[in-house]
Amino acid sequence: MSEQFVYHPIGIIHSEHTDPAHGPIQPCYADGCLGTVEVFDQYVEGLKDLEGYSHIILLYHCHRARPCPMLVKPFIQDKEHGLFATRMPGRPNPIGMSIVPLLSREGGVLHVGRIDVLDGTPLLDIKPYSRRFDRVDNTRNGWQDEVDDETASARGRRP
Amino acid sequence: MSEQFVYHPIGIIHSEHTDPAHGPIQPCYADGCLGTVEVFDQYVEGLKDLEGYSHIILLYHCHRARPCPMLVKPFIQDKEHGLFATRMPGRPNPIGMSIVPLLSREGGVLHVGRIDVLDGTPLLDIKPYSRRFDRVDNTRNGWQDEVDDETASARGRRP
Repeated sequence: MSEQFVYHPIGIIHSEHTDPAHGPIQPCYADGCLGTVEVFDQYVEGLKDLEGYSHIILLYHCHRARPCPMLVKPFIQDKEHGLFATRMPGRPNPIGMSIVPLLSREGGVLHVGRIDVLDGTPLLDIKPYSRRFDRVDNTRNGWQDEVDDETASARGRRP
Repeated sequence: MSEQFVYHPIGIIHSEHTDPAHGPIQPCYADGCLGTVEVFDQYVEGLKDLEGYSHIILLYHCHRARPCPMLVKPFIQDKEHGLFATRMPGRPNPIGMSIVPLLSREGGVLHVGRIDVLDGTPLLDIKPYSRRFDRVDNTRNGWQDEVDDETASARGRRP
């Protein structure tokens, strides 16, 4: 048997997005979409000082994603690429990642902006977004550099 | 019983770091540390076109992390913060995340720079780092803004 790791939800993400076939594919295409992140009681103490950060990284289990083949066409381009060269949700381990603005915290409830996550998604982890650790300037962005901003934005919103 | 998710490794991360008590805490403190990411055969097709990206996001299972309490002192500051306001590895779901430069790919082997991950760490996912999705300018960085770059760098290297 292959090695395995068992994870449990630490909370639930609430949003206006209920249809896996529609809605923004990333926070940058989700302006105006407010959401809440509900963290379960036993983990609330671990949120102390998170509100000092303007942005947080949500890791979550893509509970409604169907497994993808190893070659896929991403949402914003009609060319086939390797699954790991895309952000498609149906990965071998379907861990989703979204970097969202943290608007405020009330106890175990985080109010966030630009939420692109489906309503009811199980939360696995929260990390603070750090200028030192997470911002990379001057990147090459593979096939995404072939897609202009206007096309990416129009297709990434999935209205 | 609480809901649970079962994940499997898709590969293994190899590095020079073998002692959980030493070594860089993040890629930005790991200059000169070369590593390889070995992706298992059944997933290699999914790496197609990844080499077009200058940086990739590794998600992995922190297999040697001990569970942390909900309040912790991070490596680079002697003040207590909520676990989720830090990047400590011993999280309820111990998913580590590192953004590293991708130097080259040979089939299922990725050569990466600035590796901060312990040797033998099970790989969960690879995502391409995208300027559009992952770079955030003008962030507030909570307690980390209280730590000057020199202190963060000296303590973050953990020689």
